[in-house]
Amino acid sequence: MNMLINSAETVVADALRGMAAAHPELDVDVERRLVVRRGAREGGRVGLVSGGGSGHEPLHAGFVGYGMLSAACPGEVFTSPVPDQMTRAAAAVNGGQGVLFVVKNYTGDVLNFDMAAELAGEDGIRVERVLVNDDVAVTDSLYTAGRRGTGATLFVEKIAGAAAEEGAPLERVAELARRVNDSSRSFGVALSACSTPAKGSPTFDLPDGELELGVGIHGEPGRERRAMMASREIADFAVCAVLDDLEQVAPADGPVLALVNGMGATPLLELYGFHAEVVRVLAARGVPVARTLVGNYVTSLDMAGCSVTLCRADDEMLRLWDAPVETPALRWGR
Amino acid sequence: MNMLINSAETVVADALRGMAAAHPELDVDVERRLVVRRGAREGGRVGLVSGGGSGHEPLHAGFVGYGMLSAACPGEVFTSPVPDQMTRAAAAVNGGQGVLFVVKNYTGDVLNFDMAAELAGEDGIRVERVLVNDDVAVTDSLYTAGRRGTGATLFVEKIAGAAAEEGAPLERVAELARRVNDSSRSFGVALSACSTPAKGSPTFDLPDGELELGVGIHGEPGRERRAMMASREIADFAVCAVLDDLEQVAPADGPVLALVNGMGATPLLELYGFHAEVVRVLAARGVPVARTLVGNYVTSLDMAGCSVTLCRADDEMLRLWDAPVETPALRWGR
Repeated sequence: MNMLINSAETVVADALRGMAAAHPELDVDVERRLVVRRGAREGGRVGLVSGGGSGHEPLHAGFVGYGMLSAACPGEVFTSPVPDQMTRAAAAVNGGQGVLFVVKNYTGDVLNFDMAAELAGEDGIRVERVLVNDDVAVTDSLYTAGRRGTGATLFVEKIAGAAAEEGAPLERVAELARRVNDSSRSFGVALSACSTPAKGSPTFDLPDGELELGVGIHGEPGRERRAMMASREIADFAVCAVLDDLEQVAPADGPVLALVNGMGATPLLELYGFHAEVVRVLAARGVPVARTLVGNYVTSLDMAGCSVTLCRADDEMLRLWDAPVETPALRWGR
Repeated sequence: MNMLINSAETVVADALRGMAAAHPELDVDVERRLVVRRGAREGGRVGLVSGGGSGHEPLHAGFVGYGMLSAACPGEVFTSPVPDQMTRAAAAVNGGQGVLFVVKNYTGDVLNFDMAAELAGEDGIRVERVLVNDDVAVTDSLYTAGRRGTGATLFVEKIAGAAAEEGAPLERVAELARRVNDSSRSFGVALSACSTPAKGSPTFDLPDGELELGVGIHGEPGRERRAMMASREIADFAVCAVLDDLEQVAPADGPVLALVNGMGATPLLELYGFHAEVVRVLAARGVPVARTLVGNYVTSLDMAGCSVTLCRADDEMLRLWDAPVETPALRWGR
């Protein structure tokens, strides 16, 4: 598999050098693997720190900036960052109001963020943690006990980030982040496998003509494998899986925030066509769509496919969603 | 090749339905294949119309909105839109100040936009045309006499769009658009072929382990095929090709606008790493970078690879580049 890289060993460092060059408004520490919003400690705000394995860009570093994350800790490709990165990030963004760790539910991430929270606490930094576990496809997976964390991470980071920007205290930001996660569900589909730089070839076997329903963002197995389906059939399956689960928990009224997300290699032309089918299913189920995002936001390297994330958003969440944001990958309204 | 589609015949219409659902701020005419900025005729502005074959998203429809295009005419995948779309677009956006057609240099596009300009003229609409032909890889190509139009289209649409938003008259907007094109050069590289929905399999043969230097955005052949190269070597080749050509024309001083563009299937992680190499080569050649954009903007369906576009920008161009823009794919500062 041809890749636009120098070597598997330098992929993450090279990308961080590129981010530093492209985004002078961010402090990028290539050696220590930290991307920090400039002036993150100022302004009396709660700090928002996230991170995880690389290969899901723009998540997380592309969401650092005004109104969203204070810092991101990128690990190696599909590998958790280490606690040292997270404690440094916490120190770099804590202006005295405390720090919220946004953690996708993968065992390595959870352990490392927990250790970092403990270490930061010993340094006198108040830390809260929110676990993102929105993927309804499977319970327990290759790298996860419980549900995996995927597209809802974007919702959590955007909405909690807006609250922090407004000056909300730590407990409030954390409570809101948990509420967004609790109100969100996702389902992903792979049309092709992805290839990590270290392996240089597909990390799992998905023959042309078949798709994986419920795939994880590292290619973890989903619910079932089937013969290739039309976009409308995939939307039926994915949206119903999300809604069926969502309705068990949240009150089944009110509008949703919708993320129609590309896994990496699926053309935007196809994602928009898929979005039309998602909207059709939602209309048939009587679910109004309040806000929409279509594009590559939580990716899996060069995997072809898509995911749908829905968040049953209340008025406060919608107001914070609409609030200005200025990051490399998400910006509006300022 | 698995694709997220209903059928090859409905790909463009499906995508337009999705755009209509995702972007209520745009008027999307699915049947007539038009994407128009709401209120485009109001405000006493020159109208900016572009279009071309689909498969290059977000170009062009993703650039319709405040401060950029007034309308886009999407053709079938890799196929020119028809004159009827363009005359309808001209009529839909002309508020009396005239219309600028931004045309990428492909024979079908050129012929059809010329015919549309004539027809619009007969209807009393003043039309100017700018031809974008920035690709230095080859002269004459599969679908082109002269140079192909690629990444500079984004620069032309953004900068001319900002001038139109400010109320500049047609001649001024057209002159500026031509100046941006004359100051811009591009070079593209394919690491894999792309697959059109109609064909369902790769449209050209590029074996794993080889790359195409100078590829066009439809997979047209470039300068040469080589064994796979490292990111830094690709940057050396591409940036030098662009600069060598750029220096023949524009005064070789002043900063550049840089677009490091993904062809579709190359992960953002890799694009940022490539950008670091692009910046290195530019520094070595003594070229300051004034502004940077890294991401998928002028794509070729699911092709893996990248392109570099540089524009030797004067102060006016930089000011207009920085001006607020609010479109599905490009937004800042408002």
